[in-house]
Amino acid sequence: MKIRCNTHDLINGVNIVQKAVSSKTTMPILKGIMIKAASNKLTLTGNDLNIGIENHIDTEIEEEGAIVVSSKLFGEIIRKLPGDTVEIFVDDNNNVHINCNYSKFELVGQLPDEFPLLPEVDESNTISMNRELLKNMIRQTIFATATGDTRPILTGTLMKIEDGMISMVALDGYRLAIRMANIVGTDNNSAIIPAKTLSEVSKIISGIENSDDIKINISEKHIMFNFDDIKVVSRLLEGEFIKYSQMIPKEYKSKVVVNTNELLNSIERASLVAREGRNTSIKISIKDDFMNISSNVEIGSVNEDVKINLEGDDLIIGFNPKYLIDALKVIDSEEVILELSSSVSPCIIKPLDNENYIYLVSAVRIPKQ
Amino acid sequence: MKIRCNTHDLINGVNIVQKAVSSKTTMPILKGIMIKAASNKLTLTGNDLNIGIENHIDTEIEEEGAIVVSSKLFGEIIRKLPGDTVEIFVDDNNNVHINCNYSKFELVGQLPDEFPLLPEVDESNTISMNRELLKNMIRQTIFATATGDTRPILTGTLMKIEDGMISMVALDGYRLAIRMANIVGTDNNSAIIPAKTLSEVSKIISGIENSDDIKINISEKHIMFNFDDIKVVSRLLEGEFIKYSQMIPKEYKSKVVVNTNELLNSIERASLVAREGRNTSIKISIKDDFMNISSNVEIGSVNEDVKINLEGDDLIIGFNPKYLIDALKVIDSEEVILELSSSVSPCIIKPLDNENYIYLVSAVRIPKQ
Repeated sequence: MKIRCNTHDLINGVNIVQKAVSSKTTMPILKGIMIKAASNKLTLTGNDLNIGIENHIDTEIEEEGAIVVSSKLFGEIIRKLPGDTVEIFVDDNNNVHINCNYSKFELVGQLPDEFPLLPEVDESNTISMNRELLKNMIRQTIFATATGDTRPILTGTLMKIEDGMISMVALDGYRLAIRMANIVGTDNNSAIIPAKTLSEVSKIISGIENSDDIKINISEKHIMFNFDDIKVVSRLLEGEFIKYSQMIPKEYKSKVVVNTNELLNSIERASLVAREGRNTSIKISIKDDFMNISSNVEIGSVNEDVKINLEGDDLIIGFNPKYLIDALKVIDSEEVILELSSSVSPCIIKPLDNENYIYLVSAVRIPKQ
Repeated sequence: MKIRCNTHDLINGVNIVQKAVSSKTTMPILKGIMIKAASNKLTLTGNDLNIGIENHIDTEIEEEGAIVVSSKLFGEIIRKLPGDTVEIFVDDNNNVHINCNYSKFELVGQLPDEFPLLPEVDESNTISMNRELLKNMIRQTIFATATGDTRPILTGTLMKIEDGMISMVALDGYRLAIRMANIVGTDNNSAIIPAKTLSEVSKIISGIENSDDIKINISEKHIMFNFDDIKVVSRLLEGEFIKYSQMIPKEYKSKVVVNTNELLNSIERASLVAREGRNTSIKISIKDDFMNISSNVEIGSVNEDVKINLEGDDLIIGFNPKYLIDALKVIDSEEVILELSSSVSPCIIKPLDNENYIYLVSAVRIPKQ
């Protein structure tokens, strides 16, 4: 293999595929990046067997071939190269030579025979999606996935396409986040995608200035995201997702409309005091034109009043402030609606100006004060 | 105590005095900030007994008094307050009330009786110093102080004023950094200042836009820095500093002039490979118009050529690359001079364009390649 390519393009490509390289694997080859020169394209691949990322770079190929190099060291070196063009070639002993101006590196390479190929995903039924929409759907649900090992299925987000509507759903036993959007020309389908995959896809999209749609394909065990010269293929979580629609209350007794940021800031301030106590929850009292948020712990207390518009009954209820903060941070509308029924029923939070987002949060025992 | 003050001023003041608050102390009162309202000034004080910082804020005082509050919680709260003006008052039970718009906090306070006063420092012999100069002198020496416990005196930087010249000197057994500058109207004096103190002083200066000189006073056991409305008093390290002037070689056999950044970048690249090996040092070969920097470890090798101007003998020598990188990063001149004598003698690094900085670094055994 012998190529000459633009250093900046190579750095970008390595930064992207490194998101799929595991530093903790027991298979040494998976700590590497595969560099393959063929058909006038340089292809970089990282693959930790859960997620695999491939990136094509236009480059000048003098001799085709493929090699695997240490992802960490190769990445560190190319980020520090002194010139705009780098020459890479592999000698007969599989040593990878990296030459750039007066800098000459030689890295031990590995033959790519054992490097795992990216799984094939059937491309017959392609979902085409605006990348900003995908980013927002991920942002507004991903934080509600579970992080522990107790119920692996909850560490993923459900993506469901049904009758012209795409939904992403995440829940962890304490709260539930649902983001919906219209989608056209796509068959019904569903997949449970690991949160890590969605987080990496979102990061890669954010780093690229391009507004073309993303192509998504789902097979029985994998999902593939295709955009620009990048292909991300991830394993799906297997099993049945929780039946979440029956969790959402159909009725409420109190409806509160409140400024999103005022509520967020007040809860954040209250949580500063609450988290110093043994019971870290906050008390919310809804009455007439105000919501009072309070916490009273050994070393101090806090009382916040927030102006609201209340329809229905007064109510006193307890919450884990983190679960409210997480949702209020990702709701973009200026005002939110809270729907409540009693001090032991969950609360629904929705943006005032549209119907595309529902967040459900469990109440906790009202903290003693 | 009852005051009303600008939230932004209070945040700035707390950020500064918090640098002297220890979170790990066994004396609970030292985890607090003292807030004192007297003579139309609000004074904030943090003091961990090694370093104490006092900051005055102009404010409206309705009732004089003093109280100690938890530095962490008080800081977190005021940074999140919703309005431009905050009212603070202490009730008869020593509870501190913080009111701002619809936010009301109450924190348990402690009487200031046990809060340590800042040590008195004799102000008869004041050193007046440009703050940018002080910042640079700290930056160019502090990294060479020792970090371990084996020789406590080396964890400080020597500040020496002698015959119209101020020097700051740091060494750790492997390298020595000396920064000198002219100074007028100051008696001879010296002090060994803990690196942490200098680091905090440098950070505080960097955060303030003001170019007035800093006033420095040295007493037997303490040093005081006075600037703006801030006073930093620190304990000095006791004992005699190492006799460093005899360490500096008076002669050399090879003199190299080289571009500072080119040398820095080449050594940084070489160190990427070197640090993957058992022996993390690099080999430098000086010959004719080039310096070759190399490292050869199990997983790869590197060869960097840097153009130089050599007067004197060819030479091969080994170095810990970190010690070269540290110095080259803080030298502001475009070119540096390296003075060398043999592969076992230390190397001197100096800026080409002035005589105010000397860095001495020990050679290490030349790594086998």
